[in-house]
Amino acid sequence: MIKHPFSQLARRTADPPISWLMKMALERPGLISLAAGFTDDLTLPVTESREFLQEILASPSVARAALQYGTTAGDQHLREVSAARLHQQDGPGAPSEQYQPERLLITHGSQQLLYLVTECLCDPGDIVLVEDPTYFVYLGILQSHGLEARGVRMEEDGLDLSHLEQVLERLREKDQLRRLKFLYLVSYFQNPTGITTSLEKKKSILDLLRQFEKAAGHPIYLLEDAAYRDLQFSGRSQPSCLAAPGAEQRVIYAGTYSKPFATGIRVGYGLLPESLLQVALRVKANHDFGTSNLLQQILLKALSSHRYEDHLEVLRKRYRKKAGMMLEAIEAHFPAEAKWVTPEGGLYVWVRLSRQARTGVKSPLFQWALENNVLYVPGELCYAPDPTRRPPRNEMRLSFGSAHDPDIREGIKRLGQALRKITL
Amino acid sequence: MIKHPFSQLARRTADPPISWLMKMALERPGLISLAAGFTDDLTLPVTESREFLQEILASPSVARAALQYGTTAGDQHLREVSAARLHQQDGPGAPSEQYQPERLLITHGSQQLLYLVTECLCDPGDIVLVEDPTYFVYLGILQSHGLEARGVRMEEDGLDLSHLEQVLERLREKDQLRRLKFLYLVSYFQNPTGITTSLEKKKSILDLLRQFEKAAGHPIYLLEDAAYRDLQFSGRSQPSCLAAPGAEQRVIYAGTYSKPFATGIRVGYGLLPESLLQVALRVKANHDFGTSNLLQQILLKALSSHRYEDHLEVLRKRYRKKAGMMLEAIEAHFPAEAKWVTPEGGLYVWVRLSRQARTGVKSPLFQWALENNVLYVPGELCYAPDPTRRPPRNEMRLSFGSAHDPDIREGIKRLGQALRKITL
Repeated sequence: MIKHPFSQLARRTADPPISWLMKMALERPGLISLAAGFTDDLTLPVTESREFLQEILASPSVARAALQYGTTAGDQHLREVSAARLHQQDGPGAPSEQYQPERLLITHGSQQLLYLVTECLCDPGDIVLVEDPTYFVYLGILQSHGLEARGVRMEEDGLDLSHLEQVLERLREKDQLRRLKFLYLVSYFQNPTGITTSLEKKKSILDLLRQFEKAAGHPIYLLEDAAYRDLQFSGRSQPSCLAAPGAEQRVIYAGTYSKPFATGIRVGYGLLPESLLQVALRVKANHDFGTSNLLQQILLKALSSHRYEDHLEVLRKRYRKKAGMMLEAIEAHFPAEAKWVTPEGGLYVWVRLSRQARTGVKSPLFQWALENNVLYVPGELCYAPDPTRRPPRNEMRLSFGSAHDPDIREGIKRLGQALRKITL
Repeated sequence: MIKHPFSQLARRTADPPISWLMKMALERPGLISLAAGFTDDLTLPVTESREFLQEILASPSVARAALQYGTTAGDQHLREVSAARLHQQDGPGAPSEQYQPERLLITHGSQQLLYLVTECLCDPGDIVLVEDPTYFVYLGILQSHGLEARGVRMEEDGLDLSHLEQVLERLREKDQLRRLKFLYLVSYFQNPTGITTSLEKKKSILDLLRQFEKAAGHPIYLLEDAAYRDLQFSGRSQPSCLAAPGAEQRVIYAGTYSKPFATGIRVGYGLLPESLLQVALRVKANHDFGTSNLLQQILLKALSSHRYEDHLEVLRKRYRKKAGMMLEAIEAHFPAEAKWVTPEGGLYVWVRLSRQARTGVKSPLFQWALENNVLYVPGELCYAPDPTRRPPRNEMRLSFGSAHDPDIREGIKRLGQALRKITL
């Protein structure tokens, strides 16, 4: 046996649950996966990508620029278009100094932005506040960096403010506020619950965090992960935290074009306070000195031709329909005690079962579902390991993203059968 | 003034020299840059990329797969083709168990592989051996992670083995071997010197490292950065360290398709010992859960159609010609005391001037060159901050990669004038 000299980080980094969920899916070709956060294959922009790439590669000078290195921060035009679009999404009332393209960094998917920000702000033993439940891949980043998470309960319109205050108070009492670096908030159609945080709540969260800064001795940031923002079924999305008073120097906004456009084209971005941007750029230079220029040019074409927005319309319709289909099936097949929040965007339905039901990987329900070729994400995987509370064990995340229509109906039907079987 | 709660890593991460060199270049539009490691614009595979992308995006099913998420390790076919190609490059004598596709990880450029390996093996205070001089961007990764570097002198065919032994002995005497994690070796047409490490030396290096493992208490890895391997001007490249006896479980091989194919398409790869691969995969999942699938499909087309190899022939011819042009100009314009190693591949010529000459950023030579619109990389930037020795200050890295032919001649001529002016 070789004793490998792995780093602390490597030793802490556990195999993410997502990888064995994916492995299970691959091992069972007939499996209906309501677990994956993949997008709908049929909506992928094949024609658009082909046309954009033809345009980019038709002119030798444009083509060469696209096939050569760019800068670490990303293509200047893409930064400008992205910043302007974000300002427009947030509405004319949002302060324009928040949307300077110079504050925007292009990343290899928004996941990379989350990684960079965590690396730049946190040392082992530091604390990050997360929603209860939250995006489970982000929990992997926290674990890997030796960070502690504190979960904040959620309500139907986002964080439970009184619980947030309570958590902050408890950190103050224990003199742990100086280790608190930021609150991680998945603000639109949250992964996994589908819940959207209202603008009023965003303002209150920023106010609350600021009240505790004196005791912390430093700014407490708000990392807003807006990965699902563009997947709103209809209407206009609420302004981001950047538009809230007090956002200056406090809000880190993570956006992405990968989920809405094409997950095989990894282009995300971050809008960061100036000084944090400078250090994130340096660390990004060490990671890869810049996101693939060719991918950035595809998105630049999509955005500046407005075909990105046209594509969103197709997606919205499609996911609205699929969400409706899933909810209808749940209504028809799940026991009456099951509860969920009707999502207005994103890819997920979060279901809470009766109190005694168990959804974990080792539960009879999960095993029975797997034997019957249906996979879901057990809710408990989405809770941070916070020793100050016990997470519920009767929830599940169901995704209508990648499964085809008949599979959504059939998958939910089978899950309903499993539930009745287990509850009997 | 806001007191930002940056992490130790962020505080350690200095602005890399490459960024202000690039800034200087951007600020002087007429500048002849012999500093940038960019590749030649005119050789970028515009036609090939257009054709491959047309093929990929012509069939809806192939297109959708390319536009969707892949796995963290990368496309299975690309891993197979890459592992087989590497085996072929290393020759039939190389042990086939070293080239299993399962050991290969696709990354967002080989820079990301260097980052992942360093993260997975090193804690602050650990030691990495590097060549004196070495790839200066890698020095940024070391600094950012709080690592100590020890420089090992070079000879015309790679590392000075007796100095390597001396450095290892000194670490043993000081009881620092347990902090030594690996030797970082840029093995082909090294950045910055152009030197290639012979296979004999590779074998001896592996032997030497192994002799010190008992005292270290763990394996001492050899991280072979083969970024320039495919840019050999003619003939077949020497086998990699993977082919040397004793490579099992010790060699980490970093390769890339970005430099030879297109720097705007970021696809690199690593071949790692099994257990290290597992942790690197977990950390990569946190970084970005996989390299852009579309980019991988482009390289897969290029490799499996053999047009990648055809493209290499074009590159090799082009760089051979440009290198010859640069060497001729150096011969004609530089003072007789200047010395260099004639490169047989890669993008760089490394010049050592007379002992009293100074090439640093603040030197009259650098300033005079800049005023006359020529930029080079001062040699001292390529030396790790190793307190046990003083780096030479009379060297420079000259790149013939991106500059056009007349600019190479004119740039070297101006540098020659500067040198005479300074030496007078």
